[in-house]
Amino acid sequence: MSSEYGERIKISIFGQSHGAAIGVVMDGLPAGETVDLEELQDFLDRRRPGQGVHTTARQEGDVPRFLSGLVDGHTCGAPLCAVIDNTDTRSKDYANLMEIPRPGHADYPAWVKWGGQNDVRGGGHFSGRLTAPLCIAGGILKQIYARRGVVIGAHIAAIASVRDTPFHPVEITAAELEAVGRKRPLAVVDDRAGQAMLAAIYEASAQGDSVGGVVECCVLGLPAGLGDPMFDGLENRIARAAFGIPAVKGIEFGAGFGAAALRGSENNDPFRVENGRVVTETNRHGGILGGISTGMPLLFRCAFKPTPSIIKPQRSVNLRTMENADLVVRGRHDPCVVTRAVPCVEAAAAIALADVLL
Amino acid sequence: MSSEYGERIKISIFGQSHGAAIGVVMDGLPAGETVDLEELQDFLDRRRPGQGVHTTARQEGDVPRFLSGLVDGHTCGAPLCAVIDNTDTRSKDYANLMEIPRPGHADYPAWVKWGGQNDVRGGGHFSGRLTAPLCIAGGILKQIYARRGVVIGAHIAAIASVRDTPFHPVEITAAELEAVGRKRPLAVVDDRAGQAMLAAIYEASAQGDSVGGVVECCVLGLPAGLGDPMFDGLENRIARAAFGIPAVKGIEFGAGFGAAALRGSENNDPFRVENGRVVTETNRHGGILGGISTGMPLLFRCAFKPTPSIIKPQRSVNLRTMENADLVVRGRHDPCVVTRAVPCVEAAAAIALADVLL
Amino acid sequence: MSSEYGERIKISIFGQSHGAAIGVVMDGLPAGETVDLEELQDFLDRRRPGQGVHTTARQEGDVPRFLSGLVDGHTCGAPLCAVIDNTDTRSKDYANLMEIPRPGHADYPAWVKWGGQNDVRGGGHFSGRLTAPLCIAGGILKQIYARRGVVIGAHIAAIASVRDTPFHPVEITAAELEAVGRKRPLAVVDDRAGQAMLAAIYEASAQGDSVGGVVECCVLGLPAGLGDPMFDGLENRIARAAFGIPAVKGIEFGAGFGAAALRGSENNDPFRVENGRVVTETNRHGGILGGISTGMPLLFRCAFKPTPSIIKPQRSVNLRTMENADLVVRGRHDPCVVTRAVPCVEAAAAIALADVLL
Amino acid sequence: MSSEYGERIKISIFGQSHGAAIGVVMDGLPAGETVDLEELQDFLDRRRPGQGVHTTARQEGDVPRFLSGLVDGHTCGAPLCAVIDNTDTRSKDYANLMEIPRPGHADYPAWVKWGGQNDVRGGGHFSGRLTAPLCIAGGILKQIYARRGVVIGAHIAAIASVRDTPFHPVEITAAELEAVGRKRPLAVVDDRAGQAMLAAIYEASAQGDSVGGVVECCVLGLPAGLGDPMFDGLENRIARAAFGIPAVKGIEFGAGFGAAALRGSENNDPFRVENGRVVTETNRHGGILGGISTGMPLLFRCAFKPTPSIIKPQRSVNLRTMENADLVVRGRHDPCVVTRAVPCVEAAAAIALADVLL
Repeated sequence: MSSEYGERIKISIFGQSHGAAIGVVMDGLPAGETVDLEELQDFLDRRRPGQGVHTTARQEGDVPRFLSGLVDGHTCGAPLCAVIDNTDTRSKDYANLMEIPRPGHADYPAWVKWGGQNDVRGGGHFSGRLTAPLCIAGGILKQIYARRGVVIGAHIAAIASVRDTPFHPVEITAAELEAVGRKRPLAVVDDRAGQAMLAAIYEASAQGDSVGGVVECCVLGLPAGLGDPMFDGLENRIARAAFGIPAVKGIEFGAGFGAAALRGSENNDPFRVENGRVVTETNRHGGILGGISTGMPLLFRCAFKPTPSIIKPQRSVNLRTMENADLVVRGRHDPCVVTRAVPCVEAAAAIALADVLL
Repeated sequence: MSSEYGERIKISIFGQSHGAAIGVVMDGLPAGETVDLEELQDFLDRRRPGQGVHTTARQEGDVPRFLSGLVDGHTCGAPLCAVIDNTDTRSKDYANLMEIPRPGHADYPAWVKWGGQNDVRGGGHFSGRLTAPLCIAGGILKQIYARRGVVIGAHIAAIASVRDTPFHPVEITAAELEAVGRKRPLAVVDDRAGQAMLAAIYEASAQGDSVGGVVECCVLGLPAGLGDPMFDGLENRIARAAFGIPAVKGIEFGAGFGAAALRGSENNDPFRVENGRVVTETNRHGGILGGISTGMPLLFRCAFKPTPSIIKPQRSVNLRTMENADLVVRGRHDPCVVTRAVPCVEAAAAIALADVLL
Repeated sequence: MSSEYGERIKISIFGQSHGAAIGVVMDGLPAGETVDLEELQDFLDRRRPGQGVHTTARQEGDVPRFLSGLVDGHTCGAPLCAVIDNTDTRSKDYANLMEIPRPGHADYPAWVKWGGQNDVRGGGHFSGRLTAPLCIAGGILKQIYARRGVVIGAHIAAIASVRDTPFHPVEITAAELEAVGRKRPLAVVDDRAGQAMLAAIYEASAQGDSVGGVVECCVLGLPAGLGDPMFDGLENRIARAAFGIPAVKGIEFGAGFGAAALRGSENNDPFRVENGRVVTETNRHGGILGGISTGMPLLFRCAFKPTPSIIKPQRSVNLRTMENADLVVRGRHDPCVVTRAVPCVEAAAAIALADVLL
Repeated sequence: MSSEYGERIKISIFGQSHGAAIGVVMDGLPAGETVDLEELQDFLDRRRPGQGVHTTARQEGDVPRFLSGLVDGHTCGAPLCAVIDNTDTRSKDYANLMEIPRPGHADYPAWVKWGGQNDVRGGGHFSGRLTAPLCIAGGILKQIYARRGVVIGAHIAAIASVRDTPFHPVEITAAELEAVGRKRPLAVVDDRAGQAMLAAIYEASAQGDSVGGVVECCVLGLPAGLGDPMFDGLENRIARAAFGIPAVKGIEFGAGFGAAALRGSENNDPFRVENGRVVTETNRHGGILGGISTGMPLLFRCAFKPTPSIIKPQRSVNLRTMENADLVVRGRHDPCVVTRAVPCVEAAAAIALADVLL
């Protein structure tokens, strides 16, 4: 079991969507690191709902309280615990879910796993709401990394069939990463793509439906030589963290699935010396060879399935009577989680890198 | 660091391509499990090279010797160690690689990571040869799982731009999985696709080039409710193991990246009761919801990049002089690793499931 | 780093003595387990201070709030988080400790480790107060174990040079374990020994000094065959957990250090069959052979050093000026921590056994 | 389960006493570290049997073969695997042990744990022979540490009731540690104590019996600030490793159990500044406060029970018939394991420190 990640730096996430609070423990952080609470809040606000028709109407302040590990604004070495109290919950919206699992949700397998004892309200521990503590951890790590010259940024690469301009795999800059993160209403490089994405979301939403998408993430400033062979390479580490975000169903690094259709002579990135430093002319390897960083921009993409909670009636089963049953999902749900998932992917990358960077 | 996987059942892989031996330690196996050595050898032979122009001419018996953990053909509870001695090595083929890293290989980042002390011969610890001990571990686990009704099988879903018929996500059977594994020369469902794949490999090979591809893997017989939330879901576990296979650059579960372009109403798999059991009508979730098995066939695909070792001259750098340099790779290399990777993907799946199944 | 214990069931403890709160996350608990809050509070009250001159006057309610993992009084499978808010803190008592480390305390090495950023107030994360979340975790586990027939109990085996009657290594019963835990003011088998212990504490206290002691702990009801070889035997697991209690400086199992002076013929416990069950006539092995339970009572003892915080003036150094300095420790401190440590040792045993029992 | 230790540097030990080989995998060693094979062999020879009446007559070369991780005498970064082939085994001596467990041995609990499938020959995986790979790992680490100024040494503190002069807790030097390790026939400070110990062993041996003892170990050169709070302090780490040595039943640090009888004013070690460095005047804390190194000599003692394999007839049970049965143990056994355990304790300390030192 584990809602926990890491060996030297352990990130332990707890909480259910409609429980008393959600939170995170970070064990092993270096001491003396400043945590800028305003900057952290800005980061957390990037995943906040309630910012338009394209997200749920649930209002959550999502302001973390620090129970430990932080003294006068800097880490003290002891485990850091931050919590967010759950306030705006409407558990009765979920009453019928106790018996009828939502298609595409963890309701059914969690019911089997935990013998019907799981907290189904709001998705319980499987709720997208648990990405808030993920982002607390990721936001704190991002600040620590930035002071070491490592910058993480992501954008919406696609929603439905609309694609944003991808990051340039060689020339992408930290300034561009930071700029795209501040973009409103969507974190896209190309604003026209963003408009088309919003239109796609609105259209699905109007039909009681939802859409999926892809988030592309970049880590700049990693020195060459980070990561470990075989099961603890950067790809293994990042993949393990990224699949911790609900709705992620695929991940690829560099050319990814596209590399499968290339020739070796097309996919290999030639080395060259530039200003006394080894670089590659192209970057189809996404900054990782043999699981180890090459010093080039680290690039990966995560595929998000469309939000499973849709208003359209669906076919399901009643677990009590073991009969087929129709389901109408109530509650407030995002017609597209991708818009809010961008900082979550950055946070997953940050968490995955903690053991190799700190 | 770790060339090791698992918590309760720990798989520790060691060896370099041109060292004395490669091997694996499996710590935590249940006692009293029979290991059928002939069946294991059949499995290992599926990744053996030297079976045609589409693979390297290096001859390796790849017959494991068991140093511990096995008494009279059954596991005794103590850690199992199996080794394969390296015999047919031509280290001098790699002499120039000490200074000039191969594009697309781990040579350069490993050189940085280990301060030039890494064993570069044959790719050292990063060699595809290290998938032999991976397959020893996976082959033993597959035998144990089969006795518990869990069957793992994979096929070549694509090589270059040629695609095989995919597994049926709902109706795939154990017999089909076993049959495709016995197919020669390639593990494909559709023999015509196999012929076209071979043609694509030969064509690239004739041009001193290589091709990539995709392997699709299925696990049948998993009960619902296996896996853990967040960072230890089945997707996290399998992804972490699969990226341990050299050349894997992407992984997706169920509809995967394709789900990103679907509507929720298209992607959600309706539940229904069938013979007193909860199933889904379709299986775009690939047998996993919220990281936990649903009891439907578990399905995932791994993208393999084209073999980076190609005969065509390439641009690289000389790490000693720090000048640009041309490179001609010698040695014996597969023009396509995908053909031999099929059992490796099965093995990775087997390893990933050990902690949840045993 | 880690204030965390366990693989399958992970116990993560956070907090500083004078921070906002202390708490624990338990990840991996089985679902559907009832937590009797009143019984838990009784257990926590056994380590509460303020019950007499022999303990600190600091008043702490130590009533845990559950942030997650508990629904309607039973575990729901998701990580459980419980916190205790810190209220009655007098941080100014510790002002001079910022510069002058207390002999026998973690102040100095923590200052080195964390570059002077550690939270020194009240001992910070090294405070004995952190045994409260340890006891929350242990108390919950004890309830779960009791339903499976496993009972853990401890008593004060010695304070200063006064010794209690030890548990009988073969005939000790669950009823005796439960009875000694309810004893007031001290958890001793022999009340006269308890009176002499109190006298020893008062005498030291009156002189501005402190005393140490030994706690003996017993686990009853463990089936034979639990534990793992070499580094994950029961002795390894329990020792790792027990040294997590501040002030523990030694641990021994069964005859322990006494066995070093015995002959093999004296120390070996003969096996015999009793009611169709294999038992040993004596129990000098403390219920553990080769790291694995034998089914006999598991017995171990922990040595506690005397409380380092004493009123007597002590010699120390000023870390700012790097000059020798005298120190008078203020604040409220137990003249003997052993009296409150009894449930902590039980909790450590409970935590150590979670991965093998659940 | 695990015959494995460590997080960043993982030590995985495998083998059974009468299997094909025993060995160790070390994953995560720094690259470029020289391994002096002659020095390593000297270290291994310190635990070799067959050096007199006080040890078993079994002849084992115990010369490790390196399968991986070592290139031209230095570590290459990849996992290091070393094995020792088992040659001089007389499994028939153990025939009757299949049914009748030896008192004081792991035979019975291992039989229960592994359902009668365990390899009982020679103690299988629980044999003291498994300390040979432990010493390979420890010997390599000791060489790496020595280049960093950290020296580990141990001596026999007691055998039966004979005590050696203890190490001076403040003034002990690296030269003394190295000298005591070279002492023959026993690693003692005081040769007269050594003679008396030999006499005690001979006397017990002549009576078909065995004796136990205590090993004291010291680590010099550790900087202050190493270790982690709570469950990963140096005491926790060392204890977990030390109980991996068969026959260890107790461990204590610094004043240990003796501290339990002291007053705080007697046990606290006053700080003072000496040559610009913080030291303590005395060292009852054994170099560890709050689990973290203070920069003073790290000191601990392990209690070893007497060898359970004695020639004297013993009472046991027949596990097949479930009846009481008498047992006469055959095979070659040390009348005292303590003499050979000295390097094993050093090795355990070395392994325990790897994650904090490297």
